[in-house]
Amino acid sequence: MEKKILLSESEMPRHWYNIIAHMPNQPAPPMDPSTGQPAAPEKLARIFAPQLLEQEMGQGGAYIEIPEEVFDTYRIWRPAPLIRATELEKLLDTPAKIYYKYEGVSPAGSHKPNTAIPQVYYNKLNGIKRIATETGAGQWGTSIAFATQRFGLESIIYMVKVSYEQKPYRKAMMEMWGGKVIPSPSTTTACGRAMLAEDPDSNGSLGGAISEALEDTLSREDTRYCLGSVLNHVALHQTIVGEESIKQMEKAGDYPDIVIGCAGGGSNLAGIAFPYIRENMLSARKTEIIAVEPTACPTLTKGTYTYDFGDVAQLTPQLKMYTLGSKFMPAGIHAGGLRYHGMSPLVSQLYHEGYMKAEAYNQLECFEAAAMFVRTEGILPAPESSHAIKAAIVQALKAKEEGTSKTILFNLSGHGHFDIASYEKYFQGELIAYEHPEAEIAKSLGR
Amino acid sequence: MEKKILLSESEMPRHWYNIIAHMPNQPAPPMDPSTGQPAAPEKLARIFAPQLLEQEMGQGGAYIEIPEEVFDTYRIWRPAPLIRATELEKLLDTPAKIYYKYEGVSPAGSHKPNTAIPQVYYNKLNGIKRIATETGAGQWGTSIAFATQRFGLESIIYMVKVSYEQKPYRKAMMEMWGGKVIPSPSTTTACGRAMLAEDPDSNGSLGGAISEALEDTLSREDTRYCLGSVLNHVALHQTIVGEESIKQMEKAGDYPDIVIGCAGGGSNLAGIAFPYIRENMLSARKTEIIAVEPTACPTLTKGTYTYDFGDVAQLTPQLKMYTLGSKFMPAGIHAGGLRYHGMSPLVSQLYHEGYMKAEAYNQLECFEAAAMFVRTEGILPAPESSHAIKAAIVQALKAKEEGTSKTILFNLSGHGHFDIASYEKYFQGELIAYEHPEAEIAKSLGR
Repeated sequence: MEKKILLSESEMPRHWYNIIAHMPNQPAPPMDPSTGQPAAPEKLARIFAPQLLEQEMGQGGAYIEIPEEVFDTYRIWRPAPLIRATELEKLLDTPAKIYYKYEGVSPAGSHKPNTAIPQVYYNKLNGIKRIATETGAGQWGTSIAFATQRFGLESIIYMVKVSYEQKPYRKAMMEMWGGKVIPSPSTTTACGRAMLAEDPDSNGSLGGAISEALEDTLSREDTRYCLGSVLNHVALHQTIVGEESIKQMEKAGDYPDIVIGCAGGGSNLAGIAFPYIRENMLSARKTEIIAVEPTACPTLTKGTYTYDFGDVAQLTPQLKMYTLGSKFMPAGIHAGGLRYHGMSPLVSQLYHEGYMKAEAYNQLECFEAAAMFVRTEGILPAPESSHAIKAAIVQALKAKEEGTSKTILFNLSGHGHFDIASYEKYFQGELIAYEHPEAEIAKSLGR
Repeated sequence: MEKKILLSESEMPRHWYNIIAHMPNQPAPPMDPSTGQPAAPEKLARIFAPQLLEQEMGQGGAYIEIPEEVFDTYRIWRPAPLIRATELEKLLDTPAKIYYKYEGVSPAGSHKPNTAIPQVYYNKLNGIKRIATETGAGQWGTSIAFATQRFGLESIIYMVKVSYEQKPYRKAMMEMWGGKVIPSPSTTTACGRAMLAEDPDSNGSLGGAISEALEDTLSREDTRYCLGSVLNHVALHQTIVGEESIKQMEKAGDYPDIVIGCAGGGSNLAGIAFPYIRENMLSARKTEIIAVEPTACPTLTKGTYTYDFGDVAQLTPQLKMYTLGSKFMPAGIHAGGLRYHGMSPLVSQLYHEGYMKAEAYNQLECFEAAAMFVRTEGILPAPESSHAIKAAIVQALKAKEEGTSKTILFNLSGHGHFDIASYEKYFQGELIAYEHPEAEIAKSLGR
């Protein structure tokens, strides 16, 4: 048996999967809090390219053709390998078969370019010259910089100031690809100046950076905004991950009993899981889908399913989703990409309707799983992805206990080459677990 | 056409290529300066496993079977992809076809594990419990840590103190794989203590670290020493790179007119080039082989072909090789892996006998080439590997000027994810070129 199950480029799926077309209950629309009505399309059109808005609304059928130029760019690193975790299996001495889809092979080192590329492409088609976005730890900003460089657009990236200062390497990657990186809060925007007036030493926040990127977008006709997770069209683009994996599992003569993804905004989970939910819906398949979140930010497992804002500053439309409250401030865990109060509305609804389960693990358990993984499989995972590894190990050990063979697939959404400072702290015993912050969640949700 | 030419694991070559079997003139033996005679095998046997010594002496025929356990470990990341640099070709607007073999997919991020794995494996076969080695920037130490973890041995890695302090991430990677990392000079060995007595604030040097690792090895019966480049058995293990690439070029329906590798100690160049030199020797092929070195350390292009020590402290046997003199101290360029005064004796002899050419480029040209590469191909190269990229670009532009189509293959020996600080300095204009240091070379060689 081959350890790595590879697809040739000619075998790469030519479509994304639009799960909305198959959902028995249509998603609740985004709401404009000022009117109490669904957000007006013309308002959104000032922010997003029309093709992306159509995708956001679930139009175009179940299979959306990947445009030729996007497909051509995907070929730089896709199809991504599916790898049998043979060495981890041996360590666990489990009858389970563990596979992982490895998205760390992309230029940015994670799944994020899967959506950055089409988002920038559609904007280019519409004559847009400039993309404004925000980034926390830098994964998303790196992906947008790569995509804008590729299609000849400019990018302006508002990077949370504390990350800008602590993560100069990510900033250097963005600049290498021509991205203009501005620490947020900045003096470039009115809301940045207001934040600075209030606190000149502000560390910044993702919410604040979103506000700056949105203001920047609205201030220039040639500019549009891009978001790296949460939204329906982002989840759509990520389904290339799951679609490829289905073909690869077929090559391996196998099919997963369990599919696992970590969930922050929900896009990498959606990417691996939605095609398997389709198979569950349309065929006799009964694959168990597990969303994994940090105990420090347990949106699905401890949050509420309701309309809430996507950002701290409450500038976005309200989305129907699981949320810990838009003012919830998660502890400073090292899986920065999972520190989000809300959850993709599609993932939220599918979870609410019973199409998937959710589990939460603390960061010590996850770093321990990551250490087991790098010592066996040789790949250093991103701290976010380590949550999926932890859940896969739990399932593999359960299979061992029960003496049943299970086929487990998880999404290894990125590598951890830029997170080694976090690993150092873990190995030096400087990290703490951060269990479920019940009181803070209750307070944030006004319970 | 596929951009990435992949091999399945079942297509991976089952042998290394021992070029000594085909060389018309047999290599000159290592000399013991104390006797003026070839170094006694029993002295070397205290340092290296007997299988490795046999390989060092070129025994066993032209094709050495890769042991099953080594092959199994290679499968964690091998076969490595061969990639057509389509996007770089477009930028250069060249009729040349450019391919690169990408060794950055290994656990350590470079070609080094190709030899760390068999070296540790053979030592394990001989009941050795512990490996001592040295590392400069950390690539080699990382590879040895991964290999010893894999086979259940201990490793002790003497890391040049200035790197130990400046590159905590590499150190963390070694420790993650169970490596014991000691800054050199250390108080662990007599020669370390002597260096510290002379200069308590010593930054350390690779020569000093080699001396400490050798002393450590000789002081413990359960310990052997491993070296990451220069030696014949190291070059042998690296030929998996070239052998795979031949199969991949065949799949692409192509064959290289030019094969390029950067050269520090010479092992990654040997790995990609030796199988093509075989084809040149045994068939009508006329592939041009180009070794690329930094102008700051121009061993082949400006050095002398003579017997010299492998280390600054002059503890090793003398090897017949191109050298800048064992006391030559190269400028602090950011391609740390190319800062070596000597050159693989096999590469040296083949160059001397006309089987390959050599070129030198300065670090600004090479960083510029790396920037072009990451902007088109999406992979951030190690500064060492950028020398091969630069030479490939030169050849592609020459083909354009001449209006001829050439097929160019180079070895992209590693990624630059741990070298971003160097890239930052480059983009901020803080690096200098370091041209050929003629006067220093003359002085070092006693001319």
